[in-house]
Amino acid sequence: MAKNAYIAGNRQGVGQTPVLVVEDNADQWTIIREALKECFPEAEPIWVSNAGQALAYLQEARAGGGRMPKLIFLDLYLPHREDGWKLLKQLKEPESGFSLLPVVVLSHSSQPEDVEEAYDFWLTSYVVKPLDYDQWINSLTALRNYWWNVVTLPGQPG
Amino acid sequence: MAKNAYIAGNRQGVGQTPVLVVEDNADQWTIIREALKECFPEAEPIWVSNAGQALAYLQEARAGGGRMPKLIFLDLYLPHREDGWKLLKQLKEPESGFSLLPVVVLSHSSQPEDVEEAYDFWLTSYVVKPLDYDQWINSLTALRNYWWNVVTLPGQPG
Repeated sequence: MAKNAYIAGNRQGVGQTPVLVVEDNADQWTIIREALKECFPEAEPIWVSNAGQALAYLQEARAGGGRMPKLIFLDLYLPHREDGWKLLKQLKEPESGFSLLPVVVLSHSSQPEDVEEAYDFWLTSYVVKPLDYDQWINSLTALRNYWWNVVTLPGQPG
Repeated sequence: MAKNAYIAGNRQGVGQTPVLVVEDNADQWTIIREALKECFPEAEPIWVSNAGQALAYLQEARAGGGRMPKLIFLDLYLPHREDGWKLLKQLKEPESGFSLLPVVVLSHSSQPEDVEEAYDFWLTSYVVKPLDYDQWINSLTALRNYWWNVVTLPGQPG
């Protein structure tokens, strides 16, 4: 993708809310997009493949050139471990202006040091990537039911 | 309750994991305990009614005198707004030793300033208390499916 490019995974429908997917692997993005389409119709998945694009998307949205996402799905290895950590830290710094956005890490890693370090950076929750498509559907359905139906997020009072 | 007292809501079964419920209202605790029994059998709900008891329970657990909870449910108004904020801040300070524990706020308030301030304190998620028992069951079932089946927490690698 070109610098600062982003790709919307669904045609935007009425009431759809952007979910920003930060994922460097195109195959993984395809799986996530399809699974979201199937079980998360309220989401308009937006793909960015690196930290720079993610920040550019968010800054543009804040400046009025797009809609802020309700959730961010972040792959930690982009492709290096440091890339995801750096972005997570940038987002969660109080002065970033994005610190209220919930970040769900989707990572293939189940290493305890990755899990602990992620929570240490005040992420919202850490999800180990499912191994097959059916598991993706189960996980994203549970995630949707929780974040859409149960939780109240900033800017969306109950 | 006596100072530092806490009450286990279920008899502890094999494989049950403590969930710390910080709630000053005994009627609300009864509803939460019954709903958890019904839809969240893996949880052993532990009741404390104020911030001091919550910290005492956690410090005792860390010292080996009990088990650390996997999740904390925190009522913000204990009964004053400042009480819940103060506890949330104490838990989430990096040097507290408890900053990795996920905190789900269960509050009757849907005031935007409460929601935003809670996320500003890096809480995990903010849930407005349901209005009736069936809604409690729906919310806690979705919460259980997400936190038990989808998310990986520190100390519990996938």
